[in-house]
Amino acid sequence: MPELRKDPIVNRWVIISTERWKRPSDFKIRRDLPGRSALCPFCPGNEALTPAEVLAYRPEGGKANAPGWTLRVVPNKFPALQIEGALNREGVGMFDKMTGIGAHEVIIESPDHKTTLSSLPDKALENTFWAYRDRILDLRKDSRLRYILIFKNHGVEAGASLEHTHSQLIALPIIPIHVLDELHGAKEHFAEKERCIYCDILKQEINDGSRVVCENGDFACLAPFAPRFPFEVWILPKVHASNFEESQKSQFESLARLFSEVMRRLDRALDTPPYNFILHSAPLREKADDYHHWHFEIMPRLSEVAGFERGSGFYLNPTPPEEAAKFLREVEL
Amino acid sequence: MPELRKDPIVNRWVIISTERWKRPSDFKIRRDLPGRSALCPFCPGNEALTPAEVLAYRPEGGKANAPGWTLRVVPNKFPALQIEGALNREGVGMFDKMTGIGAHEVIIESPDHKTTLSSLPDKALENTFWAYRDRILDLRKDSRLRYILIFKNHGVEAGASLEHTHSQLIALPIIPIHVLDELHGAKEHFAEKERCIYCDILKQEINDGSRVVCENGDFACLAPFAPRFPFEVWILPKVHASNFEESQKSQFESLARLFSEVMRRLDRALDTPPYNFILHSAPLREKADDYHHWHFEIMPRLSEVAGFERGSGFYLNPTPPEEAAKFLREVEL
Repeated sequence: MPELRKDPIVNRWVIISTERWKRPSDFKIRRDLPGRSALCPFCPGNEALTPAEVLAYRPEGGKANAPGWTLRVVPNKFPALQIEGALNREGVGMFDKMTGIGAHEVIIESPDHKTTLSSLPDKALENTFWAYRDRILDLRKDSRLRYILIFKNHGVEAGASLEHTHSQLIALPIIPIHVLDELHGAKEHFAEKERCIYCDILKQEINDGSRVVCENGDFACLAPFAPRFPFEVWILPKVHASNFEESQKSQFESLARLFSEVMRRLDRALDTPPYNFILHSAPLREKADDYHHWHFEIMPRLSEVAGFERGSGFYLNPTPPEEAAKFLREVEL
Repeated sequence: MPELRKDPIVNRWVIISTERWKRPSDFKIRRDLPGRSALCPFCPGNEALTPAEVLAYRPEGGKANAPGWTLRVVPNKFPALQIEGALNREGVGMFDKMTGIGAHEVIIESPDHKTTLSSLPDKALENTFWAYRDRILDLRKDSRLRYILIFKNHGVEAGASLEHTHSQLIALPIIPIHVLDELHGAKEHFAEKERCIYCDILKQEINDGSRVVCENGDFACLAPFAPRFPFEVWILPKVHASNFEESQKSQFESLARLFSEVMRRLDRALDTPPYNFILHSAPLREKADDYHHWHFEIMPRLSEVAGFERGSGFYLNPTPPEEAAKFLREVEL
């Protein structure tokens, strides 16, 4: 059973795999991803290679765990957490741990092995967002869970282990430390000003314009004022909303259009870079409606994270966000 | 002039290079480091290729910026921060920034291009710690500076850009966010218990033994209870001390012996892995004597940091620290 353990100094939780643990010889630096083959577990026809699906969109109908789907969600075959079992909390002297209860799922965004988010039709991208929503709504019924992380690793440098396009979902019995930091900062701002800090940022940024990459009626894509990574961008809804899963249908349509545009701009500007994105939505149990504002953070993986960044949380970014935004704005699509 | 900018939500400062900024075409994934050549700026005879030295140990005497040194400290040729200029603080609407005042130096630990910390004699390693100390004592006179980060990137995967063994020092007018988090946690523990949290951890860990890698009279090397990375280890002084630079001479001798042993254990266990280490000492101005406890954090770079870790601060570690410590303890030196 995996374990969640808390660092007693900074209160950061980590998952420790206590089974099938990696020995020194198990670590190798990967340089390539396996390409298309009969063995890609995410390709149609290979459904038996994954655990049974928890969700699939089959516009023409058809049987579960068989071809005919346009999007498919399956449990991760090597899950970081397990949904079965009791959530046992335990003190070990001054340390705290709990059983690694949670869900770890894979969202296969397309049956096409070779597609990417930037080449996916808007409708398929919209369906990806619907799948995120459907899984959040289902998993939030489990009262043991407190936060759902949705993210994507694209490219081997960004941590992807399979080439076929997919995102991942990890549902946790704790709230990750960066999310707690964000919630804390946003709550303090709200307590002082009775305003959402993200709404304030959006207002200032859209007015200023220099860090805006693109926008439509419902969403804006910004390079943040103090980005950790070169060409880091955020996508935020223009109207205040704390929970991604409570978005209107028209908003998902609108989000798909803007998200696709941002992906295509990044691909053109940076020559199809490896990237990570992560959805920051509100926690499942804590009430944060007033001050949390959901958003995507998209981080191209252009440079190694150096030692001092890893150890200090202090980042050196060689690209000013104004220049990144200008470049992305002006690239020809 | 580089800029320091603060994220208004989580109060994280980042350095933004506003000159010679990196355009999309400037990013390439490096796979190899330049090897030994007449052009290694850290080799004896090539002193003219670096900025003028700020410190050098020349046991036989000799001229500055010429061969004959056993250790040499020079300003980084491409500094992240600049020591010249005024520390101007400025608000930009709701955002905060300041000029990128600070120091960025390189500590060349040996004249031998091919050596590593694990093959360096104890005496040379001890001199490295003396150099860290000497530079901290000199730089802390500058009242604009509030924190000094000392770290090492070894190997291209860990962010090194030159092969010749070296560590780096970055002196900052702010305190990095992870250090703030540590200080905050340690201060709360002290407020509640009148004890240093690191001293409490040391006592419990040495008593338990399962996460101890090795120790001597003055120092212990532990795999922390909730490590972010596989085979992450910390080295801490056994007697409470907040500031690295205030260590006794006998402690630096003792530290060199233990540090060297840890490096050799990591090299044997993990086949000379790339790694980062970072020295966590107390801030220069804030009084933290009671509750801060200086230490080194050593992080082998064995796996990519995945998207959700980057975006959430929540780490998935495939190696339990008890297994890592056991492996490192039992490896034959």
